Amino acid sequence: MHFDPAYSGNVFIKSHPNYEESEAVIYGMPMDWTVSFRPGSRFGPTRIREVSIGLEEYSLYLDKELEEVKYFDAGDIPLPFGNPERSVVMIEEFVDSVLADDKFPLGIGGEHLVTWPVIKAMHKKYPDLAIIHMDAHTDLREDYEGEPLSHATVIRKAAELIGPKNVYSFGIRSGLKEEFKWAKENGMQISPFEVLEPLKKALPELAGRPVYVTIDIDVLDPAHAPGTGTVDCGGITAKELLASIHAISHAKLNVVGCDLVEVAPIYDPSEQTANTASKLIREMILGWVQNRK
Amino acid sequence: MHFDPAYSGNVFIKSHPNYEESEAVIYGMPMDWTVSFRPGSRFGPTRIREVSIGLEEYSLYLDKELEEVKYFDAGDIPLPFGNPERSVVMIEEFVDSVLADDKFPLGIGGEHLVTWPVIKAMHKKYPDLAIIHMDAHTDLREDYEGEPLSHATVIRKAAELIGPKNVYSFGIRSGLKEEFKWAKENGMQISPFEVLEPLKKALPELAGRPVYVTIDIDVLDPAHAPGTGTVDCGGITAKELLASIHAISHAKLNVVGCDLVEVAPIYDPSEQTANTASKLIREMILGWVQNRK
Amino acid sequence: MHFDPAYSGNVFIKSHPNYEESEAVIYGMPMDWTVSFRPGSRFGPTRIREVSIGLEEYSLYLDKELEEVKYFDAGDIPLPFGNPERSVVMIEEFVDSVLADDKFPLGIGGEHLVTWPVIKAMHKKYPDLAIIHMDAHTDLREDYEGEPLSHATVIRKAAELIGPKNVYSFGIRSGLKEEFKWAKENGMQISPFEVLEPLKKALPELAGRPVYVTIDIDVLDPAHAPGTGTVDCGGITAKELLASIHAISHAKLNVVGCDLVEVAPIYDPSEQTANTASKLIREMILGWVQNRK
Amino acid sequence: MHFDPAYSGNVFIKSHPNYEESEAVIYGMPMDWTVSFRPGSRFGPTRIREVSIGLEEYSLYLDKELEEVKYFDAGDIPLPFGNPERSVVMIEEFVDSVLADDKFPLGIGGEHLVTWPVIKAMHKKYPDLAIIHMDAHTDLREDYEGEPLSHATVIRKAAELIGPKNVYSFGIRSGLKEEFKWAKENGMQISPFEVLEPLKKALPELAGRPVYVTIDIDVLDPAHAPGTGTVDCGGITAKELLASIHAISHAKLNVVGCDLVEVAPIYDPSEQTANTASKLIREMILGWVQNRK
Amino acid sequence: MHFDPAYSGNVFIKSHPNYEESEAVIYGMPMDWTVSFRPGSRFGPTRIREVSIGLEEYSLYLDKELEEVKYFDAGDIPLPFGNPERSVVMIEEFVDSVLADDKFPLGIGGEHLVTWPVIKAMHKKYPDLAIIHMDAHTDLREDYEGEPLSHATVIRKAAELIGPKNVYSFGIRSGLKEEFKWAKENGMQISPFEVLEPLKKALPELAGRPVYVTIDIDVLDPAHAPGTGTVDCGGITAKELLASIHAISHAKLNVVGCDLVEVAPIYDPSEQTANTASKLIREMILGWVQNRK
Amino acid sequence: MHFDPAYSGNVFIKSHPNYEESEAVIYGMPMDWTVSFRPGSRFGPTRIREVSIGLEEYSLYLDKELEEVKYFDAGDIPLPFGNPERSVVMIEEFVDSVLADDKFPLGIGGEHLVTWPVIKAMHKKYPDLAIIHMDAHTDLREDYEGEPLSHATVIRKAAELIGPKNVYSFGIRSGLKEEFKWAKENGMQISPFEVLEPLKKALPELAGRPVYVTIDIDVLDPAHAPGTGTVDCGGITAKELLASIHAISHAKLNVVGCDLVEVAPIYDPSEQTANTASKLIREMILGWVQNRK
Repeated sequence: MHFDPAYSGNVFIKSHPNYEESEAVIYGMPMDWTVSFRPGSRFGPTRIREVSIGLEEYSLYLDKELEEVKYFDAGDIPLPFGNPERSVVMIEEFVDSVLADDKFPLGIGGEHLVTWPVIKAMHKKYPDLAIIHMDAHTDLREDYEGEPLSHATVIRKAAELIGPKNVYSFGIRSGLKEEFKWAKENGMQISPFEVLEPLKKALPELAGRPVYVTIDIDVLDPAHAPGTGTVDCGGITAKELLASIHAISHAKLNVVGCDLVEVAPIYDPSEQTANTASKLIREMILGWVQNRK
Repeated sequence: MHFDPAYSGNVFIKSHPNYEESEAVIYGMPMDWTVSFRPGSRFGPTRIREVSIGLEEYSLYLDKELEEVKYFDAGDIPLPFGNPERSVVMIEEFVDSVLADDKFPLGIGGEHLVTWPVIKAMHKKYPDLAIIHMDAHTDLREDYEGEPLSHATVIRKAAELIGPKNVYSFGIRSGLKEEFKWAKENGMQISPFEVLEPLKKALPELAGRPVYVTIDIDVLDPAHAPGTGTVDCGGITAKELLASIHAISHAKLNVVGCDLVEVAPIYDPSEQTANTASKLIREMILGWVQNRK
Repeated sequence: MHFDPAYSGNVFIKSHPNYEESEAVIYGMPMDWTVSFRPGSRFGPTRIREVSIGLEEYSLYLDKELEEVKYFDAGDIPLPFGNPERSVVMIEEFVDSVLADDKFPLGIGGEHLVTWPVIKAMHKKYPDLAIIHMDAHTDLREDYEGEPLSHATVIRKAAELIGPKNVYSFGIRSGLKEEFKWAKENGMQISPFEVLEPLKKALPELAGRPVYVTIDIDVLDPAHAPGTGTVDCGGITAKELLASIHAISHAKLNVVGCDLVEVAPIYDPSEQTANTASKLIREMILGWVQNRK
Repeated sequence: MHFDPAYSGNVFIKSHPNYEESEAVIYGMPMDWTVSFRPGSRFGPTRIREVSIGLEEYSLYLDKELEEVKYFDAGDIPLPFGNPERSVVMIEEFVDSVLADDKFPLGIGGEHLVTWPVIKAMHKKYPDLAIIHMDAHTDLREDYEGEPLSHATVIRKAAELIGPKNVYSFGIRSGLKEEFKWAKENGMQISPFEVLEPLKKALPELAGRPVYVTIDIDVLDPAHAPGTGTVDCGGITAKELLASIHAISHAKLNVVGCDLVEVAPIYDPSEQTANTASKLIREMILGWVQNRK
Repeated sequence: MHFDPAYSGNVFIKSHPNYEESEAVIYGMPMDWTVSFRPGSRFGPTRIREVSIGLEEYSLYLDKELEEVKYFDAGDIPLPFGNPERSVVMIEEFVDSVLADDKFPLGIGGEHLVTWPVIKAMHKKYPDLAIIHMDAHTDLREDYEGEPLSHATVIRKAAELIGPKNVYSFGIRSGLKEEFKWAKENGMQISPFEVLEPLKKALPELAGRPVYVTIDIDVLDPAHAPGTGTVDCGGITAKELLASIHAISHAKLNVVGCDLVEVAPIYDPSEQTANTASKLIREMILGWVQNRK
Repeated sequence: MHFDPAYSGNVFIKSHPNYEESEAVIYGMPMDWTVSFRPGSRFGPTRIREVSIGLEEYSLYLDKELEEVKYFDAGDIPLPFGNPERSVVMIEEFVDSVLADDKFPLGIGGEHLVTWPVIKAMHKKYPDLAIIHMDAHTDLREDYEGEPLSHATVIRKAAELIGPKNVYSFGIRSGLKEEFKWAKENGMQISPFEVLEPLKKALPELAGRPVYVTIDIDVLDPAHAPGTGTVDCGGITAKELLASIHAISHAKLNVVGCDLVEVAPIYDPSEQTANTASKLIREMILGWVQNRK
């Protein structure tokens, strides 16, 4: 008998078995050690892959099939438990390598802090990087109870690195008063509560620029994503989030990388959150990877 | 002591104890053996009946009470585990009998394949039958991994039997590229993503014709129906589905039978899916049974 | 088509359709209004019946099949929500009728207070009644926060009615200091922690007397019955409880009625508690009903 | 070591430690004994407090922080299990005291019956009281299966006390035919299905009057509040409920007290319902307390 | 960057990446289509692999580490949904190949029917095969509601193939009266209720013979394995099952293959059943594979 | 109205409101940041307190009531998320203070690493300290994936501090081969699999010495404690653990402090684990605090 070693792999559906031939790389960042409320997003990447077998391979929204894009699923980066410092270093090194090979990085969290080292790597390659950030929370704290490396500081650190004017946040409905003040004073673009309409307005400004998109699943209302650490009502629907992904695709934005974070399966026995995440990732693959310049 | 033998019955609320005097017949089809992803809809009919005791008997939407319609709950057809061939035969025979007695069949699934034998029975009685199909999925495959009797082929088989032009699908958001192609080439009506608005446009065409309505609960967004086999985000709200049922009622369509399928209780600890199904069935009883010509 | 009106009934498996011809009567007492900690046992009877379809009809323990005993499932007594006074009256009247027809009453709770009116009815017919009580709790309070009708007072009231010396409690592991004192001073038999061994010692004393057996499912360790209001560790295994039921059967005790109470399905997603209850009831039917003199 | 006795308290986030200095008083009413379908709301207040630690202290909607309002968390009123008569007396006495101290009462249920004694207390102080009632259900029954003290009669009793014309119900989608008839004949304002738009129309009429607002969490669609006793589909979104709270705030209505009832945590493993309730309470504190005249 | 294609694989912990060099082969049989009560074991193999990452690699019971045995995880056999006939053919062919390569097959179910084709393949290679069967159920039916291919017939079919005298069943506590009769009349060895003690007595008889061991997880009491289709109380503890595996190991039995079936993860939110299964598989690997002659 | 500020406190049942007057101090250590498998024990202390309201105040095992011992519930130490270094410092300082006030510290975890700083504090006061350790795991690693501060290293660090010969581990069933080797070579007492019998043998050796007892809830079989991070089958029963606590009490051991760790409520919808933990703590309070010399 002959066996393909990837035969039994719990990989994202229709992943290409060969890294070298792939345009994009999916990778998991199973880390939740700085979470302040409910942990569990470390199991997000595994569960999202597991339920991806239930996905249709064709997107009616984009009229495109998964086999039209080659993406490799690199599995989870083996992050050290309880050590945010080493974890962010490992993630940055991983993404450096992916970018060195000129592939599109598509990360799955894990808590939102994982986006920080990705942005650092992206910024080295794309100095004029802009960020589209969809989230319930500002994540603009300077530190969280004295800790600068935190899920609650990730966008602040990113904004300080690439310039606050280059960060576009959408769907925000929670944060400290100081965070909103800092954003305003520093020229950051924060669109409260809504995503699709303000995004459509912002897209022309972003034309041609390299853009990184980071989506915290809690930008969705808890009705649509109960399986996350912080369930904060008043969010957008899955329909609006899908339409936002498609708007970026239709605008032919030069998306150079992206992530989806904060799926915590244990809080959602229906597994709708992981299933939704897998569908969003399908749309991100089909809609964004091949628009990269 | 004297006991009515149906005293303890787990029947749909306000069911009439006498078959002969009833206008409609509720029956369960507890089958999920061809399900490709998550099984469990075999327990749908029982749980929907169980939670129906929480229903109000009056519909504010239709200004009508359950006691105005006589319907008998015939229980579940005792389908043989793991045998789709015999199961579809048993269902067809059951519905043949219901139709021979000139009653309105209202079926509860079970997986969507159960609708195939119902349609066969309906078509024998109503050769000019049209179908209204509300679902997240096309269900138009020719076979599923080589198997022609499958939840994924049910509408294809129905369309081939009654003519694709007589099938109106609404709310569809998932399927194979070939399925959409087949539908288009054969004149089937597929309304993607939405239900209420395209339905309102289609209703005049359907006036006067005998119509069978089949609703897969997954036409709802998973936020509204987490308890189903395939949770596919981007669906409609329960409000829109209720309004669609009412639109069919207000148009005085000649509905001659209907079903609601794919409730799988185990995935929904809140039981909102079963509760929603029981309310939808109340509205189907009140809105459709007495419009039958 | 002809329908047996009980066709769809959610009745305990293999129930006989005719009350008059039956030796025993199963009835539900869906009441949990005086519960002090976690409510939900009102749904016990329905769920136990529902899962009884998974039972084998043959007991290897007793080498006997369910069809050897005729029992009627009378459904749930429609108790008024939040009104313990009226509820106990209704239960007593129901059991009076069952006893007037000389049938064996087998009740399913509901909270333990439901046993009080049953005992009252039993005692009218059997003035020399003894009680076997298996429970984690003494239930010997005089009142509970001023309320004499409470799940926590049921055995006290029973003991005062039939005489404390006629009450044999087994498996007790929780109670107030005063309760144990009262029991001791009044000659009640309390066997702490264990059931099978002390029961075997007590059986000879009970020979020939009419005995009512009341089992609170929480006599089991929470490992074996997580779906109950009060999960109090340190209980017996399901094996020991089964063996205790069989010991009573083998001793040919004159059991004249029995109940099983406090299954609260919502706390047990695995449904093992309801399944266990349904198996216990099978053994009670097979082991006890036909030993009645 | 010195300890603040409230150090470990499970109190609503940012509660003020001193009753005398507080403007508002939060109190729990852990009662569910008259519930007709699924009990469990007795654990609502505790769980809402527990998850409130995940709340941001700043409201972006109202641009206001919790520390701007002083509110004391008085804990749960120790209501007697299974005794609605004594429970309503205890609640009324508690609220009498709060009002005597001229503080704003903010109650957390528990089943909806708890609102009845609150209204009685409010009406003694504010004879021209009006009520804004957001709910899926009319709660206008004269009695429930013979029982006048019931979650299903609470608004009827209130309406009879303060005059039906002074009661404004919003979002209603379930009830008996007679209830709607009674409401109409007696001049009560019932806005079916929707909340925000009819509320905006009603606000001018209510200007200047003392208003009590009672929110049953089931006014939300089950997608947004699965953790409640009666999950009745077709409700409003959390966005609409938040906007309704804000509309009352922006209209500077003289809200003199309020409650949020019917959160039953056990039915919602994601805890989104309790989290949503805690956010709604934050907005009620920030939006209403300081508008009181 | 270089990637090992198995990097992200959801394989059983410490699986060897190379089939040819391995002594044993783990394979999943994700099938549950003939299940009569609660389906869901199709997800058993995937979840058992997923949680195996939580396993220690050293067995204190056997003083042995996983790296001392080379085993390849071949993933799941892609069985066709709802088609038992084709499924059993595919399994038999798979095991034929494994045996042709002289490797030890270790299968993970899926429902118990999967064992039937394995036994057929084993028997072709080992005509004097004996079977050790640990289960709550006899599985000795001739057919199940007319269906000969069923989880309830698997041991009957196996016994008829290899001779009933060569089948040793342990821990049985449920079955039809006829099944026990058939077993007795045909010389099958059934040890009711217990496993370890009767197994120790049987081991000498089995010395030297090729033995296949099939374990249905429901031989455990539901307290120890709530995540299975049929939860039947009165089973053995996990300690006893571990000791039974070790007894076979210490007896140096010539075990030539084995399986573990019927883990259905959805019924067990704690995932203890899948975790227990993964530990049992570790002990089976360490205790049995290298005793094969 | 007058309010006791601790009125609403979520404190362990019957806690004394005054620190100074108390003999013992309960404190939570809500930390799970170094957990390698399933996080969630940060919510252990809160949930254990919450369910403690369901406890009887009298122990039949010890014939003693909670009011006979004065213990203060100090709440949770506010540990910084994701920072094990600062967390252990804060815990050590807290316990230093408790010991300085000559009170008995009773800690609730959180992950097992929390015990390390407690031992450091204890050892400063009691240089001849011995440790009784009940656990499924050795926790004797030198580091965990390079990290010395880990739940998996806690007993190693403690053993190195107080001398391996002074550490008595019971119930151990998992660990690395090296860990057991290290233990053996260094004279540590490890009793595999069992607790009660080896403990009884060890008690005489410990007479008169100051002893700290640390209990990892996973020493219980997962059947008895599904709500923990690592569910490792083959553990002891709750009965055996209760008896072990009582054996220490009856031996009049000089217990000078204790903890109970690793309850992770999210994995146990029945809440039996938290309820069991609360009962164990009651027995530890009643059985140990007043034996301290």
